Amino acid sequence: MSNTHGPSKELPLTDDDVAAPDHAERARTLVAGQRTGALGTLTEDGFPYPSYVTFALCEADPVFLVSKMASHTQNLEGDDRASLLVSEDVAEDPLANGRVTLVGRCRPTDASEVREAFLARHPEADYYVDFKDFGFYRLMIDRIRYIGGYGRMSWVETEAWHAATPDPIAESARGIVDHMNEDHADALVAYARAFTRATSAEHATMTGVDRYGFELSVDTERGPRPARVAFDAPLRAGPEARTAMVALLKRARAQLG
Amino acid sequence: MSNTHGPSKELPLTDDDVAAPDHAERARTLVAGQRTGALGTLTEDGFPYPSYVTFALCEADPVFLVSKMASHTQNLEGDDRASLLVSEDVAEDPLANGRVTLVGRCRPTDASEVREAFLARHPEADYYVDFKDFGFYRLMIDRIRYIGGYGRMSWVETEAWHAATPDPIAESARGIVDHMNEDHADALVAYARAFTRATSAEHATMTGVDRYGFELSVDTERGPRPARVAFDAPLRAGPEARTAMVALLKRARAQLG
Repeated sequence: MSNTHGPSKELPLTDDDVAAPDHAERARTLVAGQRTGALGTLTEDGFPYPSYVTFALCEADPVFLVSKMASHTQNLEGDDRASLLVSEDVAEDPLANGRVTLVGRCRPTDASEVREAFLARHPEADYYVDFKDFGFYRLMIDRIRYIGGYGRMSWVETEAWHAATPDPIAESARGIVDHMNEDHADALVAYARAFTRATSAEHATMTGVDRYGFELSVDTERGPRPARVAFDAPLRAGPEARTAMVALLKRARAQLG
Repeated sequence: MSNTHGPSKELPLTDDDVAAPDHAERARTLVAGQRTGALGTLTEDGFPYPSYVTFALCEADPVFLVSKMASHTQNLEGDDRASLLVSEDVAEDPLANGRVTLVGRCRPTDASEVREAFLARHPEADYYVDFKDFGFYRLMIDRIRYIGGYGRMSWVETEAWHAATPDPIAESARGIVDHMNEDHADALVAYARAFTRATSAEHATMTGVDRYGFELSVDTERGPRPARVAFDAPLRAGPEARTAMVALLKRARAQLG
């Protein structure tokens, strides 16, 4: 340490060009991971009216199976302007949760792919899907607002939204993180020492993982600091995480000597 | 049994005049139990725009502490028509969850009671409450939509909304239900035999409790059936549940002989 007393400029543990999901991918992943949201419609007198709905994604559009008697359906018959808010519910601090608002026009549809997409995501809807007063609607998105928690937010381009794919390892992420923290503390320290500026770290915790890499919280002399490590190549499925982690560990150990 | 074969008219286990919370009380209780919701505002071009917010209740109105840079705040500056959707997240079947949409006009406020109510509910906001770009808003409700799950829904009168009080035992309810089911199976059977039409019940589960009474699922020859039992008087706080349950048990046992 050249200067252990007094303030000095602190570099982040890793640079911000480590491969990571872009906002379009983060937003698609978040929305793909939820089954309910708040559908905003307009009342007859022009008030915004959010109501609780189940939804699925058909291609990149949210689709709904709604009762003709529901307020939102009556609102949509009067005005097709609508939005869907989809939120995570994982962080204890509410404002640290990610959320996405999808804005567009929401219209009835008889398309078979909509029905299939909805029933695949909501098999419990099978018993009322053919009730006469139920029908499908599709929200054709033209604006996407992504808020990934504090300080991570943007309007996502519609082209990027449509082109993006949900993270294929999202459903395995929690299991991978728990497994690494419980059984592979040594590997996490090796990653931190080899691939971050915390070259003498003695403890690190995995805080997240996605197809491109993973996030660490590394104990440093100044307290815990975030870092990000990239896989050698993006994963295509959860089970590939094990091989990728082992390959990185081998490289880390070779580098540390 | 006069007729154990073939269909016969089935009476509910208890009549529907057993004391229970009305919709205004159910809605107030639901909203009081949550800290986040979907705030619907209007974009510049008139689209409904739900966004994720933290809120508190000040008297019976939702209040918010929002950044002037947030989309919803900019929307409210252009048009004060707004709605707040508040949802439960307890039932596995999403549409069985209760939810409330509160419609009205949402305006900036400097009232000290708003600040106090918000910070009491969100102590974590203490560190940004005085940031220059944050301010309080209050939603002055003029319509209330309550949906308590399948088939239980209504527009609640604003007078009833303001007059209602949240259930004082709501926070204790889960603990009471778990305790009764784990440790007092005999008492539940006694309640079922004495106070419902299932006079020879051999098993019952408590499924809910509120200030006025509790809900049972009673095993009958036709399968599990719901029933409701009222306390002798409404409870004013969670700890009164024990005394009320014991009093009912005494009465049940006296009646069963």
